[in-house]
Amino acid sequence: MDTQVHSSLRTVEWKDNSVVMIDQTKLPNELVYVKYTDYNDVADAIRNLVVRGAPAIGVSGAFGLALAALQSKATDKDDLIKDLEHAKKILFETRPTAINLAWGLERIMNLARLGTNASEIKSTIVNEAKIMAEEDIAINKRMGKNGSYLFDDNDTIMTHCNAGALATVAYGTALGVIRATKESGKKIKVIATETRPVMQGSRLTVFELKHDGIDVSLIPDTAVGYSMANGLVSKVIVGADRILSTGHVYNKIGTYQVALMAKQHGIPFYVAAPLSTFDMKSTPKDVVIEQRKSSEVTGVAGKKTAPDDINVINPAFDMTPPEFISGIITEAGVAEPPFDTSIKKLFESKL
Amino acid sequence: MDTQVHSSLRTVEWKDNSVVMIDQTKLPNELVYVKYTDYNDVADAIRNLVVRGAPAIGVSGAFGLALAALQSKATDKDDLIKDLEHAKKILFETRPTAINLAWGLERIMNLARLGTNASEIKSTIVNEAKIMAEEDIAINKRMGKNGSYLFDDNDTIMTHCNAGALATVAYGTALGVIRATKESGKKIKVIATETRPVMQGSRLTVFELKHDGIDVSLIPDTAVGYSMANGLVSKVIVGADRILSTGHVYNKIGTYQVALMAKQHGIPFYVAAPLSTFDMKSTPKDVVIEQRKSSEVTGVAGKKTAPDDINVINPAFDMTPPEFISGIITEAGVAEPPFDTSIKKLFESKL
Repeated sequence: MDTQVHSSLRTVEWKDNSVVMIDQTKLPNELVYVKYTDYNDVADAIRNLVVRGAPAIGVSGAFGLALAALQSKATDKDDLIKDLEHAKKILFETRPTAINLAWGLERIMNLARLGTNASEIKSTIVNEAKIMAEEDIAINKRMGKNGSYLFDDNDTIMTHCNAGALATVAYGTALGVIRATKESGKKIKVIATETRPVMQGSRLTVFELKHDGIDVSLIPDTAVGYSMANGLVSKVIVGADRILSTGHVYNKIGTYQVALMAKQHGIPFYVAAPLSTFDMKSTPKDVVIEQRKSSEVTGVAGKKTAPDDINVINPAFDMTPPEFISGIITEAGVAEPPFDTSIKKLFESKL
Repeated sequence: MDTQVHSSLRTVEWKDNSVVMIDQTKLPNELVYVKYTDYNDVADAIRNLVVRGAPAIGVSGAFGLALAALQSKATDKDDLIKDLEHAKKILFETRPTAINLAWGLERIMNLARLGTNASEIKSTIVNEAKIMAEEDIAINKRMGKNGSYLFDDNDTIMTHCNAGALATVAYGTALGVIRATKESGKKIKVIATETRPVMQGSRLTVFELKHDGIDVSLIPDTAVGYSMANGLVSKVIVGADRILSTGHVYNKIGTYQVALMAKQHGIPFYVAAPLSTFDMKSTPKDVVIEQRKSSEVTGVAGKKTAPDDINVINPAFDMTPPEFISGIITEAGVAEPPFDTSIKKLFESKL
């Protein structure tokens, strides 16, 4: 491992021709690393949420294909490609709607198809997957540095859901900015919302910040307004699942109301996400917000908390309009309102 | 039983010289009624949250004293008063900070002290406790009727926490208004928030509305903003734990943010509470909001959902300022802004 990530968890990693992952299903109760040498086990891990978070899944898929290459007994290119196509199908079907998984698999396959012989392809693939993991970290670190200037000494920063090391290869997006702010020498505290129904805040964010020695307090989602009204919050930072060219941000359910309350209390609200999160073609009308299963709301960790057979409204995401957002932090810089022009500029600066 | 409550649960009731209660610790999974003839069992029931909710506890305490009177072998007044004082102490110590419990016990004791002989006192006490239960229902029904005019046919009404039949003897305050609106012939739907951390919304509100055949949908607390932004909410109604003369409302944590979001989306926000909830002497500076134990937030129903030894901010209540409130519904009428004058008028009209 040649990248030193200061006091941060490594969600997924290539090590001695195997894939090592944190088993996130065991969190927050146990920090367990699992090691895979068979791509079928990586597929199971993605399917069973041992690893989750769009960037982490993309890289895990690529590592899965790298294992498949090493496992293949093929000695010529065509046979190897056949084996890889088979593995790609199995890996892809674990989370078919995850854009990053398809992207990670395709990037590896494109490279494989360009190779000339089996042994060269095998080593190219392993190398490329490792590069993808390092790129993910490098992007997060640039994003973190770009965002760190927006935060001040003694800030208490509220975050919602988990946009952390555990959703990426390491370091994180929103939590990466928090890490970079701390690394810049500023003293900061974090308030993490529980994030019902799936509780990524209590299970993952609190876990990883505590692990890194960052001062974190957990609140129920009902205490956001109280915390802001009582002067406990200096700034807010969250991640994003999709950002439109107009600055409309789609993120975990509850983000919108945190933003609305921040606006009401004059608290800056920031979003941190890589350029790959931007959807420059869609308008809000095009975006369908998926409804998730009701059992997430009628129970917790297998324990029933509501009567059977009731109606449940359980949207996975909500939309935060641009007027509630103070800035969008990316690896290419920070976009500020008006977002129509500033987001475009980020992409131009990258060209 | 001489009060017919239309399709509503009866939380606590006097029946054939015994006290019958819904065991709320079994909800929402089972609707079980328990029957007590010993006041010590009533004390246990209050202590163990078989019954909860300020008005319900006040009446339960009175019923407990009525049982103590029947259990007493005393044949003269002094001995009976001694037995009652002993029972009062045991009942009071179950929830020593509950104002309504002290009030209910004191009202019975005052009457007992005025009696002339043991047998007269016994029958007076039993009668008074029954009257107190009926009064609670009558107040809720007047409140319900007063509030019902504020709601329209086809409204979808959001509510937070449980201000229902299960917090009172029957019918409820905020949910009493919802029942009265339905009984007036208007077609309504309800959206109930889960209300973390103690989940009174999913465990109690959804249960009792479903029981009464009222169309109810459960949402996580994170989906309040989404529901309002997407036009799913016509009006909001909640209960209150304390209301100041200025219209500042103290209620379950999360109420403030629901009110703030309702204001932002132009949705009327109502509070329903009896006059006994008003604190006409205190100012916001005087009111201390209690912090509850962190295990409520780090776990659900005995299941751990966050790491050990983390900081938790878990306020029991929050304060909603008057500018977010469209009206306060009481048994004496509806107070509208400006509340300084309208609340005073409610109390004058009652004199």
